[in-house]
Amino acid sequence: MTSPLRVIQMGLGPIGQRLVQYLSQRPHLKLVGALDIDPAKEGQDAGLLSGTRALGVAVSADPTQVLGLEAQVVLLTTGSSLTRIEAQIASCVRAGKSVVSTCEELACPFDDQPHIAARLDELARNHGVAVLGTGVNPGFLMDALPLFLSSACQEVRAVEVQRHQDASIRRLPFQRKIGAGLSPEEFATQHRAGQIRHVGFAQSINLIARAFGWTLDQVEEAVEPVIAHRPTASSFIQVEAGQCAGLRQIGTGRAQGRVRITLELEAYLGHPRPHDTVVLRGQPEIRSTVSGGVDGDIATCAMVINALPALLQARPGLRTMADIPLCHWQGG
Amino acid sequence: MTSPLRVIQMGLGPIGQRLVQYLSQRPHLKLVGALDIDPAKEGQDAGLLSGTRALGVAVSADPTQVLGLEAQVVLLTTGSSLTRIEAQIASCVRAGKSVVSTCEELACPFDDQPHIAARLDELARNHGVAVLGTGVNPGFLMDALPLFLSSACQEVRAVEVQRHQDASIRRLPFQRKIGAGLSPEEFATQHRAGQIRHVGFAQSINLIARAFGWTLDQVEEAVEPVIAHRPTASSFIQVEAGQCAGLRQIGTGRAQGRVRITLELEAYLGHPRPHDTVVLRGQPEIRSTVSGGVDGDIATCAMVINALPALLQARPGLRTMADIPLCHWQGG
Repeated sequence: MTSPLRVIQMGLGPIGQRLVQYLSQRPHLKLVGALDIDPAKEGQDAGLLSGTRALGVAVSADPTQVLGLEAQVVLLTTGSSLTRIEAQIASCVRAGKSVVSTCEELACPFDDQPHIAARLDELARNHGVAVLGTGVNPGFLMDALPLFLSSACQEVRAVEVQRHQDASIRRLPFQRKIGAGLSPEEFATQHRAGQIRHVGFAQSINLIARAFGWTLDQVEEAVEPVIAHRPTASSFIQVEAGQCAGLRQIGTGRAQGRVRITLELEAYLGHPRPHDTVVLRGQPEIRSTVSGGVDGDIATCAMVINALPALLQARPGLRTMADIPLCHWQGG
Repeated sequence: MTSPLRVIQMGLGPIGQRLVQYLSQRPHLKLVGALDIDPAKEGQDAGLLSGTRALGVAVSADPTQVLGLEAQVVLLTTGSSLTRIEAQIASCVRAGKSVVSTCEELACPFDDQPHIAARLDELARNHGVAVLGTGVNPGFLMDALPLFLSSACQEVRAVEVQRHQDASIRRLPFQRKIGAGLSPEEFATQHRAGQIRHVGFAQSINLIARAFGWTLDQVEEAVEPVIAHRPTASSFIQVEAGQCAGLRQIGTGRAQGRVRITLELEAYLGHPRPHDTVVLRGQPEIRSTVSGGVDGDIATCAMVINALPALLQARPGLRTMADIPLCHWQGG
């Protein structure tokens, strides 16, 4: 067996802690450093803090110390805004580390944040490392999976993806993010304030369009509440009839006036038929469904962990799921 | 737009001709040479011979001339036996060309044909090119697709794949290969003679096991006829009740006595519910179905064409679908 990949975890919130749990179960990965700015976490064992066994890695609040460790890759789970984490990614790259982040905007930033994308790409190339944004969505269900399914097609005219989720099994922050338990008025207010929506549609649409060679002239998104017709509940939130159980979000990408890409997310408490469906209109037409849907909390973290070996085989630069080797689970 | 990839087609049988058709529809690919040993094809325009427009490429019977052309990659569709095409692959590699072949045994030859695999790998590395065996099966539905779906899993304990096909839509050679129209006795005789079975289960099983890090101690296959209970027919073959409509083939991979991988192919005339299903037993459990199934004749050729850009980005050597960048359709 080759020696394990040496990994640093930056950010020990709920996602970061789950990543530490997951990687502690993989023989080909080894946590060697952990960083968090929260003074309450400093000095704690990263494994114990994350609800798994002691890993002999104390949480540090000093990025210089942590990035000075010998490691191939940093898992970065400190935020969803690429503007805010660009400097953190750059520090990792300058320290000679590849980076995987759950930052949704990093999944395909070339169109919406071209300057940041160009800076990170150049920096990563210069340091011979790779940078990737991934997760279950964006990163897999609504972009990389439709792309891979298209391998079997001689022609693709349009892509339609439906992700219908019963949000009652998800974490509380997710249930809040979809507006569960709000009145329609509160939903509208919070949506206008940018607090309610899934981030990542634009990235998924751009990832597909770039890979397929489609030049889009319009990318649009719309969000509306799903109103509960009868009372429903999760472990965290009680929703009365007439309140919001969650959201429906539609994203479309048009080229020359024709809709080429349609992404639909329905996430609400009590969805009766959760599923993830990809339809490729083309030759042949492919309709692929994961019945029950894919558990987003598990899958996002699994995706990051499973991307590591592939990322370290990828060409240096700012990469996407469309241009790194095939990701897959690895046990052994 | 970057200049098109320059492609040579070696072998202009039914699959080779379809590849020529398909690549003539892709702006990023350009046929520059075509080879076939059949004197009747020599000198004909490869496009017209393949049922598409004239491509200005005359079929040659001289491998030295064709391999002397400036091209990045050869599509090799001359046979299913790796022993018999090894020398052809080696000639392409020595001419500095990457190779993609539909030869089933090339999809993952490291376990069953380790000496050939090692020779081809070393040769390809020395010449800085990549060699790949792919197609819809092996190459996608029963191996690469389950692998990619496992990206969303934190744990995989077992893999089960079902490919259930209505063979009446397939080409005649395929219908013959599955024994449609034979008596049970003829089926048994032809099966013993090695004429009836799908080739590729061992390759798919080994591809999955290697990627997952599972060391298998047993790989088994079994084939049985599917008997028609009432008369059925395709455009080519009439099957009476009591005759064989096709086959059922099961492949299993065991590690330490436990079945880890189960592949099931049912291919017969009149299958009432064709589908391709992947089940990953693990955390989370994933059950993914392509309803209606994937058309194998289209998809095998599409897969080869769609693998080209990824292959040319892959590291030199003998590669598999598990270690080249994500394949996808590309139009533009």
